[in-house]
Formats: sequence, structure tokens, C-alpha cells
Amino acid sequence: MTEVYDYIERVPGFQVAGVHCGLKADGVLDFALISSATPCTVSGVFTTNAVKAAPVRLTMERLKSHGDRVRAIAINTGSANALTGGRGIIDAASTAQLTADALGVDRAQVLTLSTGVIGIPLPMDRIADGIDRATAALGDNWHGAAQAIMTTDTRPKTCAIVVHQPNGRSYTVAGIAKGAGMIAPNMATMLAVIVTDARLVAGQADEALRVAVRHTFNRIVVDGDMSTNDAVLLLANGAGDVSIDTGIDLIQFEMALIQVCRRLAHSIVQDGEGATKFITINVDGAPDDGAAHAIASAIARSPLVKTAFYGEDPNWGRILAAAGQTGVRFEPEKAQLFIASGQDAHDTQDELLLMSYGEAADYDEEAAKAIMRSDAVTVSLELNQGTGWSTVWTTDFSPEYVQINAAYRS
Amino acid sequence: MTEVYDYIERVPGFQVAGVHCGLKADGVLDFALISSATPCTVSGVFTTNAVKAAPVRLTMERLKSHGDRVRAIAINTGSANALTGGRGIIDAASTAQLTADALGVDRAQVLTLSTGVIGIPLPMDRIADGIDRATAALGDNWHGAAQAIMTTDTRPKTCAIVVHQPNGRSYTVAGIAKGAGMIAPNMATMLAVIVTDARLVAGQADEALRVAVRHTFNRIVVDGDMSTNDAVLLLANGAGDVSIDTGIDLIQFEMALIQVCRRLAHSIVQDGEGATKFITINVDGAPDDGAAHAIASAIARSPLVKTAFYGEDPNWGRILAAAGQTGVRFEPEKAQLFIASGQDAHDTQDELLLMSYGEAADYDEEAAKAIMRSDAVTVSLELNQGTGWSTVWTTDFSPEYVQINAAYRS
Repeated sequence: MTEVYDYIERVPGFQVAGVHCGLKADGVLDFALISSATPCTVSGVFTTNAVKAAPVRLTMERLKSHGDRVRAIAINTGSANALTGGRGIIDAASTAQLTADALGVDRAQVLTLSTGVIGIPLPMDRIADGIDRATAALGDNWHGAAQAIMTTDTRPKTCAIVVHQPNGRSYTVAGIAKGAGMIAPNMATMLAVIVTDARLVAGQADEALRVAVRHTFNRIVVDGDMSTNDAVLLLANGAGDVSIDTGIDLIQFEMALIQVCRRLAHSIVQDGEGATKFITINVDGAPDDGAAHAIASAIARSPLVKTAFYGEDPNWGRILAAAGQTGVRFEPEKAQLFIASGQDAHDTQDELLLMSYGEAADYDEEAAKAIMRSDAVTVSLELNQGTGWSTVWTTDFSPEYVQINAAYRS
Repeated sequence: MTEVYDYIERVPGFQVAGVHCGLKADGVLDFALISSATPCTVSGVFTTNAVKAAPVRLTMERLKSHGDRVRAIAINTGSANALTGGRGIIDAASTAQLTADALGVDRAQVLTLSTGVIGIPLPMDRIADGIDRATAALGDNWHGAAQAIMTTDTRPKTCAIVVHQPNGRSYTVAGIAKGAGMIAPNMATMLAVIVTDARLVAGQADEALRVAVRHTFNRIVVDGDMSTNDAVLLLANGAGDVSIDTGIDLIQFEMALIQVCRRLAHSIVQDGEGATKFITINVDGAPDDGAAHAIASAIARSPLVKTAFYGEDPNWGRILAAAGQTGVRFEPEKAQLFIASGQDAHDTQDELLLMSYGEAADYDEEAAKAIMRSDAVTVSLELNQGTGWSTVWTTDFSPEYVQINAAYRS
């Protein structure tokens, strides 16, 4: 049995804080610290961008040597500490050192993440102040920690699942995330930290996180469209009384992890810059899963499709045209396209067939427009040319998005 | 010697017309006909979209069998005749038949192109009317023909070059085009028809057109982002007294063709939907030309980069982050990024270095902002990691773009 919450009450052995230290104006929370009383097994999935921020490079290094005994993560906003040269690496290492000193742990046990403007060095005096304040404030304020990692997000993103095992024992899987940006096809930083008081071994954690990210965060942050700073970290401190072994325990843990990641990923989409709609895109019957994902992603990132959604126009021609441009060969004469109102609403009764076997279906334009006026719309493209499938979540494209991104930074 | 014009006076042996036949409202020109008194050698470059419009499929077929004796091209707006099933193919063939009847040629000698909304069948009665009107109006009104193929374009796009050979003979290379859309990363239809009264053989024409398109239209319509209807056609009717042989004649012709294509391609960018700026993106010193083109295209299509340009913000971090996400490996620590005011303004005195060897250069923010306020801006990324280079032309991303594309069709 599992209980799902959109807030985090506490996770045994973990303490967190979100504080203001002058990285942003007006007393807004801008620095977060996550600390564990015991060493954690940590797994990470990082940006594939050729330009990686200093903290990402340092964290990737640390995971290789100290991935089984991490004690803390320090996260700053305001500066991405990317394209900051040798100084950027030194600043990231200093952040880890200062945090380690404050917590009384080894600096190699501290990971750092950053999000903000590229090319601007970390203001180390403020970071030092943030570390002091956060250390003093450590507690169970996960809401504050989630707030402190936001950039253009409008609300903090948290999720917790308590898993009850048949033997009466239980553990928690909880996570915070930040997104903002239109996500695909953007490069706004996506950060997520997921923690559990269950005990995991490194191999399990790596595999579980990779699978979870593939089915959740990578379905909103389209492959290859990653910022310099994207990172998802999973920390297991074993502070509870559950050890995840193989078999049913591991499956249950993986399901909980995917659920946490999916809810956080959906929260990121729902909070997309200027977004007015949550759009689910299913592609089915493709030659293989990779082809299906390429097509779903191409639809999701097409500005013409996104603006049609903003205009609440059931313009299925744009969807097919976007689908056709990935290099994946398919025959439109075998394909069908459906829309439905709601999130993940494929195979529901109210699906409306817009395009059938390469030409317009005989549908009611008013019914189609009514679906497009929903806050959540599901688009399903059935290629009928194989068994590959993929689902991608995205948003529409509004004039407000352009304004936000034209004004940000200046 | 060559003379370059942004209008077309006449091209020997060709007659054209642009008429209104009810495909659009309010008497706007909506149907174009290009006719040659003698059979033409024709080459074509077509969309690589898996979803190809009926006229594109038919035209590709016709070029295989009748590529050395084409007599006319009929172009309609209003409907793309894409995703229109078997009826779409029949309608495209009927358009060719009706045009052939009106002109007294064989139907296999007529090509058709369409642009407009996807999924809507051609209104054949109006098309028939358009053919009659256009046939009656045939003459030298290239401006009218260019107007008649526009969709969301705000102005017709024409260009002509008269090439004078040392032997005193001369010929014309002239073209009309339509673009609209933000071009990359959009799928708005791009059509161009280029004609010459010089005599070409098929192999020459194919090679010349492929090279010209690669260096011009394919640098604005980024590879793989093509609509269902994109087509560029080159017709040589040999009505003049010049035969293009090999050697210097061929090189001179190819240069003229590239110049016509480049001017039309630039016109398309300048007329991009909601565009406020013309942006030239150079990538130099990449591992190879393909890598350079992938990086230049990624920068050009990044919504974050485009909105920063709209906001006149010298946000070089977004440019580097976009460059990093193509899968091409490069070391930011070897790279430099410059901006300059003006079109194709690389290697000019006024270039400003923004990023040097992986970190911010010591530049004057006001000077950078002044460059960003220009109508035309050139961005040059020197990777210093090879000899590959590419130039791509694009525009910024304005709220108006979103509004145009949200409203179009509805």
C-alpha cells in the first residue's frame, strides 16, 4: 500500500532548509540545503549538453569517488556557475568545502547544484552567508527548500510517497524539483532531488533512477534539449528500517520512485512559462519505441503545433506535418489521429477521430473545438505500422512565454 | 558582368500570371501560372517530410518521366492539398490536365504546387476558374505571380540577374518565392520557382540547383524541418541564345543561381512572421561542416535565443547552451563568441567579443546592447577545434509570431 502526498512532512534522517542570502532581490528564498544524518548512496542523471556547468562537472566527479557516502547537497539560484572558467570550478569546490565545514563532514561528501544566469560567477560571500543561514535553519521545511530552488517557477514542486510493506515496515520516497521554461524545446534548468530513508545499494539506485528518469523527466525535457545545469539526484540514507533487496521490494520501490518523478515532471509542465494547457502526446504503432519518441517529441516541440493549441484550434494538419519531419518513415495512409479532453486521456470514450488513413475524418468541428478549449488535451497518433509507443507531456506556446523570456535577465 | 534586380522585367520565352479565383477572400491574388513557349529542362528539390502533399508527389513523379520537357507550373494557395487521400492525387492530376488543356500542351508537361491549410481538399471549380483566368492573363507580370503565391507573407519576393557573357550574349536567371512562418524551426511552406532562358542539360541543372539550395534555402529552412509542401524548382527553357556548357559558363551560371536563391532566401527571413530582426549565425572551427551546421541550426532554432534577441539582450549564455545540445562534442574552453551589427558582419572591425575561452570576456555591456538593438545582428561562434564552418540566417521570436500562428486558420 502507498500513500501519495503533494507535500513532504518529513523524511527520516534528512534535514533541509531554504533561506535568503541575497542571490535574488526582495528577501526571496534563494539557497537550499539538504543534509543527511548518515551517509547516502547517491545516483545522478545529468545534462548531456556539451557545455556543462562547474557544479555538474564537480558533482559527476564526486559521485564516482564518494557515491556511497554523500552527506549533503547545496543548491544556489541566481547564477548557473556555467561558462565561468577555472574560477567556476574553484567556486563550486569552495561551496562544498564551506558546507562541509558548517556540517562537520568531509568536503567530498557534499554535492553542489546551481541554477540561474549563465556566465556570471558565484557571489561567494553571499553563498557563504547562505550556507551559514541554511545550516542554522535545518529542519523539516521541505516546502521552503523547494521554494529556494525556484527561478521562473511560480510555485514550489514537492511530492512524497509512503510505502507500506506487507511486513508492517514503511519508508518514504520524496522529491523536490524546479523547472520553469517551456521545457521542451527549451534549455531552462531542470533540477530534482529525490530522497528516501530506505537502504539501497549503488547498482539498484542507478538502475532505478535511470528507468524512472527515462519515463518521466526525459518525456518532458526532450532528449538532447538539456541545459548546462540539468540534474536529477537520488539519495538513499538507510535511516529507516527497510532495506530494499531484489524482487518485489525492488519493484515496489521502483514504482514509488517513478510515481514521485512523474508527479514532479507533470508539475514542471503545469508550471511552464506562460502555459495555458497541459498536453499529452501519445504515439503508438511506430516502427519502434525510439521512432515513436522522436515523433512525439517533434510534435511536442513544434512552435506551429504549440501556437495552434494556444489558439484552441484543432489543426491536425500541423500535428501530422510535425510528425513527418523527424526522418522516421511512415505512411500517413495507415495513420489515425485522435484528440480527447483531459490528461493522459487516450483510449477513453470521448476520443474524437480527426484524421483517418491520411485524410480528414468526418468529425464535428464544434466538438473538436470544445476539446481544444480544455485545460488538458490528449493527442494520440496511431501509426499502425509497428509496436513502438511513447508518451510526451508538454504545453502550449503563448505570447506571455515570449515576453517572459525576452525580459528575463535584462 | 551581371546586373541584379529585385524585380523581374521579363524572361524570354516565359509568361506568367497571378489572378484571384476565390481561394482567398477579398479579391486577393491566389493562383499563379508560369508558362514556357518551349519545353524546359526542370530540376526540383522537395521536402523530406514523411508526409508529402499530393502535388509534391505528382511533381516528383513527373520530373522522372518528363523532366526535360515541362511547359507550365500551376500554383494554388488556400489549400496545401496535403493529407487529402486519393482525392488529393486526383485533384492535383486534374489541375495539371485542366492547365494542359488551357495551354494546349500535354498534361504530363504541367507541374502543380500548392500551399495553404493541410487536410482540406482543393475546391476544383475555383481552381478551374483560376486556370482560365490565369491563361487569359499570361504576360510579364511577375510581381503579380509572386503576389499570388503568398500566404502569410507581407510582400512578394522576386529577384532577377542578367548575366552578360564576354562574347556579348546574355541570359536571365529570375525567381519568385514565398516563405512566411518563422522558417526554422517551423514548417510553413517554402516555395520557389527559378527560371532561366539559358539552355541547360538535366545533369547540370540538378547539380547546380542542389548546390544552390544547400547554401541558401537550406540555411534558413533548417534541415529536417520542412513542411509537407516545400519545393524549389528550376526551369531552363533555352529560349535565349546561350547554351550553358561546362567550364567558366557553368560556374558563372551557378554563381548567378546561388545569388538569386540567396536573395530570395534572405527575403523570406526578412519577412518572417512577427520578425523584428535579421540574424546571421556563423559557426567556425567545428570538427567538420556538418557539425558546424548542426550547431548553427540549434542556435537559430532555440526559442530562448530567439526571445533574447527580441528582448535585445546580449545573452551569450543562451547561445552557448543552445550550441551545446546537438550531440556534437566541443570544449567551451577553446571557444570564442562575437556579435556585430549588420547582416553577414563577421570579421568586421566592430565585432564585440562576448565570451572568450569558456568565460565572459571583458566587454562593455552598453556596447553589446547597442549591437543587439540593430535591425540586423551577426553572431559568430569560433570553436577553434577544426575547419568546419556554416552560416545560417534566422529571425527573432516575438509575441506577434505567437498571435499570428494562434489565429491562422481558425
